Amino acid sequence: MSEDRVQELRAQIDKINLEMLDLLNARARIVSEIGKIHTQMGVSHYDPQREGQMLQALEMANRGPFSNETIKALFREIFRASLALEESQARAKMRVQRKSPEDRTEIALPDGTRVGDGSFQVIAGACAVESFEQMDEVGAALAARGVKMMRGMAYKPRTSPYEFQGLGEEGLKIARQVADKYGMFVVSEIMDQSQIPMFMDYVDIFWVGARNMQNSFLLKAVGKVNRPVILKRGLSATLEEFLYSAEYIASSGNPNIILIERGIRTFEKWTRNTLDIGGVAVLKVESHLPIVVDISHSAGRRDIAKPLARVARASGADGLMVEVHPNPPVAMSDAKQQLTIPEFNALMDEIQRPELA
Amino acid sequence: MSEDRVQELRAQIDKINLEMLDLLNARARIVSEIGKIHTQMGVSHYDPQREGQMLQALEMANRGPFSNETIKALFREIFRASLALEESQARAKMRVQRKSPEDRTEIALPDGTRVGDGSFQVIAGACAVESFEQMDEVGAALAARGVKMMRGMAYKPRTSPYEFQGLGEEGLKIARQVADKYGMFVVSEIMDQSQIPMFMDYVDIFWVGARNMQNSFLLKAVGKVNRPVILKRGLSATLEEFLYSAEYIASSGNPNIILIERGIRTFEKWTRNTLDIGGVAVLKVESHLPIVVDISHSAGRRDIAKPLARVARASGADGLMVEVHPNPPVAMSDAKQQLTIPEFNALMDEIQRPELA
Amino acid sequence: MSEDRVQELRAQIDKINLEMLDLLNARARIVSEIGKIHTQMGVSHYDPQREGQMLQALEMANRGPFSNETIKALFREIFRASLALEESQARAKMRVQRKSPEDRTEIALPDGTRVGDGSFQVIAGACAVESFEQMDEVGAALAARGVKMMRGMAYKPRTSPYEFQGLGEEGLKIARQVADKYGMFVVSEIMDQSQIPMFMDYVDIFWVGARNMQNSFLLKAVGKVNRPVILKRGLSATLEEFLYSAEYIASSGNPNIILIERGIRTFEKWTRNTLDIGGVAVLKVESHLPIVVDISHSAGRRDIAKPLARVARASGADGLMVEVHPNPPVAMSDAKQQLTIPEFNALMDEIQRPELA
Amino acid sequence: MSEDRVQELRAQIDKINLEMLDLLNARARIVSEIGKIHTQMGVSHYDPQREGQMLQALEMANRGPFSNETIKALFREIFRASLALEESQARAKMRVQRKSPEDRTEIALPDGTRVGDGSFQVIAGACAVESFEQMDEVGAALAARGVKMMRGMAYKPRTSPYEFQGLGEEGLKIARQVADKYGMFVVSEIMDQSQIPMFMDYVDIFWVGARNMQNSFLLKAVGKVNRPVILKRGLSATLEEFLYSAEYIASSGNPNIILIERGIRTFEKWTRNTLDIGGVAVLKVESHLPIVVDISHSAGRRDIAKPLARVARASGADGLMVEVHPNPPVAMSDAKQQLTIPEFNALMDEIQRPELA
Repeated sequence: MSEDRVQELRAQIDKINLEMLDLLNARARIVSEIGKIHTQMGVSHYDPQREGQMLQALEMANRGPFSNETIKALFREIFRASLALEESQARAKMRVQRKSPEDRTEIALPDGTRVGDGSFQVIAGACAVESFEQMDEVGAALAARGVKMMRGMAYKPRTSPYEFQGLGEEGLKIARQVADKYGMFVVSEIMDQSQIPMFMDYVDIFWVGARNMQNSFLLKAVGKVNRPVILKRGLSATLEEFLYSAEYIASSGNPNIILIERGIRTFEKWTRNTLDIGGVAVLKVESHLPIVVDISHSAGRRDIAKPLARVARASGADGLMVEVHPNPPVAMSDAKQQLTIPEFNALMDEIQRPELA
Repeated sequence: MSEDRVQELRAQIDKINLEMLDLLNARARIVSEIGKIHTQMGVSHYDPQREGQMLQALEMANRGPFSNETIKALFREIFRASLALEESQARAKMRVQRKSPEDRTEIALPDGTRVGDGSFQVIAGACAVESFEQMDEVGAALAARGVKMMRGMAYKPRTSPYEFQGLGEEGLKIARQVADKYGMFVVSEIMDQSQIPMFMDYVDIFWVGARNMQNSFLLKAVGKVNRPVILKRGLSATLEEFLYSAEYIASSGNPNIILIERGIRTFEKWTRNTLDIGGVAVLKVESHLPIVVDISHSAGRRDIAKPLARVARASGADGLMVEVHPNPPVAMSDAKQQLTIPEFNALMDEIQRPELA
Repeated sequence: MSEDRVQELRAQIDKINLEMLDLLNARARIVSEIGKIHTQMGVSHYDPQREGQMLQALEMANRGPFSNETIKALFREIFRASLALEESQARAKMRVQRKSPEDRTEIALPDGTRVGDGSFQVIAGACAVESFEQMDEVGAALAARGVKMMRGMAYKPRTSPYEFQGLGEEGLKIARQVADKYGMFVVSEIMDQSQIPMFMDYVDIFWVGARNMQNSFLLKAVGKVNRPVILKRGLSATLEEFLYSAEYIASSGNPNIILIERGIRTFEKWTRNTLDIGGVAVLKVESHLPIVVDISHSAGRRDIAKPLARVARASGADGLMVEVHPNPPVAMSDAKQQLTIPEFNALMDEIQRPELA
Repeated sequence: MSEDRVQELRAQIDKINLEMLDLLNARARIVSEIGKIHTQMGVSHYDPQREGQMLQALEMANRGPFSNETIKALFREIFRASLALEESQARAKMRVQRKSPEDRTEIALPDGTRVGDGSFQVIAGACAVESFEQMDEVGAALAARGVKMMRGMAYKPRTSPYEFQGLGEEGLKIARQVADKYGMFVVSEIMDQSQIPMFMDYVDIFWVGARNMQNSFLLKAVGKVNRPVILKRGLSATLEEFLYSAEYIASSGNPNIILIERGIRTFEKWTRNTLDIGGVAVLKVESHLPIVVDISHSAGRRDIAKPLARVARASGADGLMVEVHPNPPVAMSDAKQQLTIPEFNALMDEIQRPELA
């Protein structure tokens, strides 16, 4: 008997649901029409004062049982959905968002090397350019293993103003020379938009570091450069913030962006940072941009480089970044995480195993 | 002209809003009636399969412009609001939730000392009971400053099984003896429900530590004891989880709960933990339970004990907890954060300044 | 000329270095002898008061240029090294620490299935036992894919006391019945040491959850049980704390421990937790215990289950844990992360690709 | 008897300690002399290759019982102490480090207002300049309560390129006009060094935001400006990194720096960020710079503004920063945390209570 009553009541709810559905869609059509008028008038779609008035009217009319708070919360959701309907078109225009499973950005380097085409690329080299000899030794080792993108870092963002800040333009020259000698491309970190003209002379692939991930002036500036840009996730950036930073570049005109995950800051002390491999998987779902895993900074220790390289590959990432130095203990930075050349070779053996292809 | 059109469209929206308001409340009344029937039948109110069917029906009926995803999201909000309407009555029954600004739990100790009545109480003592002499020396100092609640920790939760685990029942006896000598109450950490009978013999105020904040068997067990319980926030517990843990105790029958904030785990290294003083302020808004600030574990260093004590007082907390040891460098645990007796006296001078009353 | 002087000075330093080396080792031998005497006398090796006296003597004798602070810091290091020399023998006795690359714990189940032998095992099943039908449907699917360890969770640790807490012993019975029907083993979470006798009747592999990772009474109790124990990393536990918790079990007599990494709590919101895959790689270096990756709780979303499964395998872990439910949207817990049975089958296809073997 | 033997052995250790003390200091003197020569030669003091050779020599000479690892670790400490001895002079030169308890930076504004002199200053105003009317209304309210430093934010660092980015130079003009009308100073965020000339025309106090805390080019550039700079802690910056960022400014020539703590990123969701009040207390110990507490961004909710203001004052901070808007719900950013003008007045009443002076 009470089951019958429940069925009866449920039928009433079903009817109300459909009535509300019609009202919601009718409402959305009107909002959309207002939106078009506002666009023509150059007025912002979001009008909090109007929202405030509507909420007040509802509050005054409300007789319960829903509390005013609940009614306002539900209508705020409805307002948000209406705004979102307009934004979904904007969002459909959000450049870095993946639209379909096939949607992928492939970045083509001048020699035909591609990043994001399903291949697994390696970016490698010393933490910082220290001398021609050092770069030459590393460069030869990289080239021998088919690496095409060489780190040529000449400006080092450092915590302290008294730490080694990089060789500057001299370092860029050395990197260019070595890259040319071995047929590789120079990847180098840019720290301020004023450096762009100089970088155009030496650098093939611009790199925006973790500390500058939300430096919007720099992002917009590299968005106007016709070279690929590698964008590093901030120390404590959410994935959403990371994608929005990429959008700053993309919306300024440069679609050739490679994301790099470098570990986030957590309480754990046995690794320098915590590699967010789940985040890599999520980024492959949410964005069509290629993504590379930095196995050096995320771990801060070389003894787990091999498993992390396998992990990077397994995650669906488009490549990895690893630091290599002829003599890590005497390196001017990141001594504990840079691989020796034999360690680098062992790593390449590991990820180039044919069964992983 | 387009302004006129906007006004016209807005009037249509206002009308739709009110129609939806009526439908929402009508719907809520029906849901409520079903809820009552289900309660009589002993059936859970939450019926995900029924929800699935309603969403499917809406999806089939939807002609846009809202996408199916948006429609489903909005209706899920409506379903949630209806459930919440029922829960708000439940929530009104959530025991630790503050109902009004005047709502406060005051905990009365046998000698008339009250926690949560607007006074600022101090809980103090050594990190662990080590000997009668140590406890006696500290006890005399505490009593001289009017402290009523003395730490008498005899079971220490330690990271390693090889670290000092406390003196056990022998330690409880010492604590009881010293507390009796100076007219204080023993506060002591309980680690397993099997200890309750023994604790009833020695301990006035039970303490549930950070590592056990979500040990629901222990929470329910101390919820059946007629002594006050101090509940410490977990290392990485959200405020919501913290309140739900208190609710485990309260819903088992014991309303005399004191919350203690002890710092959360973050990346910062210059303090042992990060004291979440904003969280203290939020808990005073959300709950009527007294809350105490642990200025020892949150900092892990004694040189900022004074400012933290002032901060605790200013935050609206009901007291603070501080560790005091006759000779901190030789303490068996927490050597770096325990205050010497002269430091403790200076701290009491600071917080007992009459202008802060 | 100044280069010559530098060479001369460096020669002096080399000589001093060797003299200090001799003194350090002589000192260590004496400390070791004292240690032996203290062991015979049953006295603790660590004597902070003696250390205090030595530091004071050095301070009084110090004429610089090293400051007293530096001298004290250096000698504290020397004291620590001497203690560590003794502890290294203790450490060599720390049961969960890996002693050599070949050192691995293999856990043998009654039917010959092994965990930790280089194979990649799957632990799977519903988040919670809800009914015989649900368990039977999942159980059949698991058995069809060769899964040997089935989740049979009957006690659910929940944030709120008002959430579904599991079916209790009734749930254990169902799990046992289904496991027996399909020739699998029951894995089930124990929440309090008082449950051990009951669990012995139904459960093959004990599971200690994240909230109880530092419940030392429970750890010691399961350390006395002759069944394998799965130990889950706490929400915010460091790797060091995780291993020490395992040591509580091991040092109580039970060497059959499987570690499970389930993601740590961070600021990121697009995943429920942050899977610490670098931590998995580090644990394989530091410990000989098998480790399994929980790809359900770490992500909290099923759309990245496949890449995370590949990642788990690539990391060197000994297996993965995944939640599977016949109808996730109506599950009583964790609806968003449980896989459907077809999704589970696709996942198994992915990780059983022969080229990964 | 064995006690006698222990006494005897301890006497031997005391003797060795003093011999090592002499050797350590002798060594330090020689290192210091080499350091001076290297400074003259323009060579870096840190020579990892030389260290490598010394460690190798020690390793070859070591006969135990200390392991080679321990010996190398101890000598690395000794090397570090020697370097540190030189750095301590450098460190004594680290400009933002507090040298003595009396050491404090006081920042004098043109009208005689001082920050860091023991007074408690308030920086207030709207999150962003939106219009003259809005700024005028807020400005009048601030001036009426004696506020001297007004937010005049015209460039907003936003997560998304599609969010409101500020009014730009037009906004700076409005801020200048309003500040002049009410006799206040304009505080405004600079985002790129290219903006400096424009900012010199409108802005009294430069503000470097959290996202730019490690933008070393910008830090060095504002270090050359003769106006005070407010430096905000990064979302996830350690206190050490924060001070080093201030050192970038100070070492470029500008000593007039105000630090601002704005909450750090944690897992907690009931507040926008976690106010690190312990960090404020530590910064007062470690640095002589004034520090201000941002009670708006750290909480993200206005209902705890009052307790946080009291907390800021109690912590020993030199002031607070609070956002105030004539109509928060319609603000173009940070609607949930800005105070209304009446709320702002109530807050000022709270912190200006005479007994807190």
